[in-house]
Amino acid sequence: MNSVNIGLVGLGTVGKGVYQLINKNRSLIRDKSGVDIRIHMAADTNSEMQKSLDIPSEIFTDCADKVLESPGVDIVVELIGGTTTARQLILKALKNKKHVVTANKALLADHGKQIFSEAVKNRMDMGFEAAVGGGIPIIKTIREALVGNEIQKIIGIVNGTTNFILTEMTRQGLTFKQALTRAQELGFAEKDPTLDISGGDARHKITILSSLAFNTMVDIHRVYTEGIEYIDRRDIQYAGELGFVVKLLATAQRVGEGVLVKVHPSFINQYNPLAAVSWEDNAIMVYSDFLGKSMYYGKGAGSRPTASAVVSDITEIALRLVNGQHYNPSLYSFFNNLDQLDSGKTRARYYFRFNALDRPGILSRISGVLGNHNISIASVIQKESEEQHQHVPLVMMTHTALEDNVLNALEEIDRLPEVEGRSKMIRVIDE
Amino acid sequence: MNSVNIGLVGLGTVGKGVYQLINKNRSLIRDKSGVDIRIHMAADTNSEMQKSLDIPSEIFTDCADKVLESPGVDIVVELIGGTTTARQLILKALKNKKHVVTANKALLADHGKQIFSEAVKNRMDMGFEAAVGGGIPIIKTIREALVGNEIQKIIGIVNGTTNFILTEMTRQGLTFKQALTRAQELGFAEKDPTLDISGGDARHKITILSSLAFNTMVDIHRVYTEGIEYIDRRDIQYAGELGFVVKLLATAQRVGEGVLVKVHPSFINQYNPLAAVSWEDNAIMVYSDFLGKSMYYGKGAGSRPTASAVVSDITEIALRLVNGQHYNPSLYSFFNNLDQLDSGKTRARYYFRFNALDRPGILSRISGVLGNHNISIASVIQKESEEQHQHVPLVMMTHTALEDNVLNALEEIDRLPEVEGRSKMIRVIDE
Repeated sequence: MNSVNIGLVGLGTVGKGVYQLINKNRSLIRDKSGVDIRIHMAADTNSEMQKSLDIPSEIFTDCADKVLESPGVDIVVELIGGTTTARQLILKALKNKKHVVTANKALLADHGKQIFSEAVKNRMDMGFEAAVGGGIPIIKTIREALVGNEIQKIIGIVNGTTNFILTEMTRQGLTFKQALTRAQELGFAEKDPTLDISGGDARHKITILSSLAFNTMVDIHRVYTEGIEYIDRRDIQYAGELGFVVKLLATAQRVGEGVLVKVHPSFINQYNPLAAVSWEDNAIMVYSDFLGKSMYYGKGAGSRPTASAVVSDITEIALRLVNGQHYNPSLYSFFNNLDQLDSGKTRARYYFRFNALDRPGILSRISGVLGNHNISIASVIQKESEEQHQHVPLVMMTHTALEDNVLNALEEIDRLPEVEGRSKMIRVIDE
Repeated sequence: MNSVNIGLVGLGTVGKGVYQLINKNRSLIRDKSGVDIRIHMAADTNSEMQKSLDIPSEIFTDCADKVLESPGVDIVVELIGGTTTARQLILKALKNKKHVVTANKALLADHGKQIFSEAVKNRMDMGFEAAVGGGIPIIKTIREALVGNEIQKIIGIVNGTTNFILTEMTRQGLTFKQALTRAQELGFAEKDPTLDISGGDARHKITILSSLAFNTMVDIHRVYTEGIEYIDRRDIQYAGELGFVVKLLATAQRVGEGVLVKVHPSFINQYNPLAAVSWEDNAIMVYSDFLGKSMYYGKGAGSRPTASAVVSDITEIALRLVNGQHYNPSLYSFFNNLDQLDSGKTRARYYFRFNALDRPGILSRISGVLGNHNISIASVIQKESEEQHQHVPLVMMTHTALEDNVLNALEEIDRLPEVEGRSKMIRVIDE
């Protein structure tokens, strides 16, 4: 029998899912793949987990180091999260000649370079399918299914919390605050939801994804990131009137010898398949030179979907071990060294909403400023003012314009005495 | 340098795409995967192809046997299609200890058992990603990404021609004939479109897909198959009124120790992500115990997308060769022996449209017959008769009912003197 021993470290949401999956489907996996995955050790600092998961006491430990040092363990599965202990743990596992599987997106986005070079130095494999898109097999797809393609662009809905909130705002007409509360009640948002709603989690994921897709080490600090905190339900409503849906999109695009990677709320066409990705679901659209447009859709988080991705990685590495495959460092080589572009230098269409005094000449003043910055207007919606308000919403869609020009023009418009508050701008992803 | 030699047999639509892909992206593939794919020979009975593709004369031949017999060829890529010559060719290649990559769905659906056993006997690999879903990596996903999951159900839009026709009928209000003509004009339907519109092509694909997903050899002759020839634009319009979209769906479902595999026009909910899969695009939704619902979307045909899948297979086998991986027969083992169920014994909701004489009591007579067969009605639409017609369309949605009962009831209703012509029935896929 060809069997491989794994050591689970961390029995929280994902670790629990992995333990349960292997317990339920171990013989099915063996029949399908030819390899038997055995849980040799399972560690958690909280020893209550042993009882609650009914783990045999002889394989449970509350000390992660025991797993890293056990000669019986072939693959260490790191599921504790965070970037401090987890980093030390993975580096030590690699040095101890253990292959590693992880779901830790923050760690790989922040310290990928160090971790991948340690892996290659020790000729160990690193599986991280679960780090992006939960159970969606996007890493495998980019690496293997698209191996023959030059990838041109990726557009992803990679954060379930923000997609849930935006879907609630769109379908139920809730405010951001109401939708966030609902997401928290249903377990789709954390008590402190900052990392999700600020776009930070999506930034981790697109950093990893674009590094792989373009075979270059993307610097997370240069990924322009904007969250959904300031999305107003009025903007969602206007989007609908104009034939668009508002989504938090993580995008990465090859432009000449550079790559542009960013995360921001976006208008996308209502007929784009991404527009139909609702609630907590995730999806990633990939544009490539031969396959063309393809999309991968599913659960981007959660115990069981993420466990599915972790076990896919475990099985793949286990098969390499039992089938005697030589080590392939190409899996971890980022052979391109692409410039990371500044979003200000790119061109797109834009949606604006101004709160303007309902006074003659205001449309002309605003469009004058836009014209001076080479921004031409494609369409305007001006509603009648509600009785008690002096200000009316003035909504515009531009033709393609340079982002730096747009930012300068908005700054100038915001200083006009007839304009109240900060103007709203949302980028349009034209696909 | 780790290099692997391939022999291309057949330079039609797909073969041409493969040749062009490797010519364009060979060094990219080498950088990404670590393996160099070399076209050692390329064969086509039409020697014009040499010039038109600008193939060096020393690697071109008009004789496929030369490829099969060349000691330099590691992988034979069969892209001639059909089930006669292609079958002999693949069997011979395997006997000659060549690995095989093919896009030939008809061959695998009809003769998969023989071909896979010959492959295992000779310890050779068979790649067939391109046989289902064109460039969509559904074979890899089912085998590898979902290896930890028990698959419960598959629902696929796997034929671009019929999806194009149904989309035209839905969005432009065309008749079936008009939409077919348009599909032919645009190259999305063959001159003789029978294999596509009858559901035959979708049947090939779901046979292969369900065999893999459920690890059982599905018998194509027991796959219930119904095409879209009789879909009327009125049915599509009523579907819309009821909140559904009409799609040709290929479905496979595990039911106890059996599997139910079928292809037929279906109502699906307008919010199902499959409903947004339009024109010639394909998508496959997979339901599994840990990942849950996931969907894979893209181009299901065409030279370049299909080439992408073929090259993914070539690279995977090439990597096994250069990395010294032992042969893994589990890839081709269908270890389950599931009963193939009869669709008559299954339960679903149904859409009916009757052409009934506009006469008192007719609704009661029809619903009486349905009631006698244990079919209860969920909703009815009866429109006023158009002036010149004696007959009115009577539209019904049922609650869940047994298919055999539905077929018997319809036969009885069709014999009623007040009912003109054959009644229309379309199955509802409730997801």
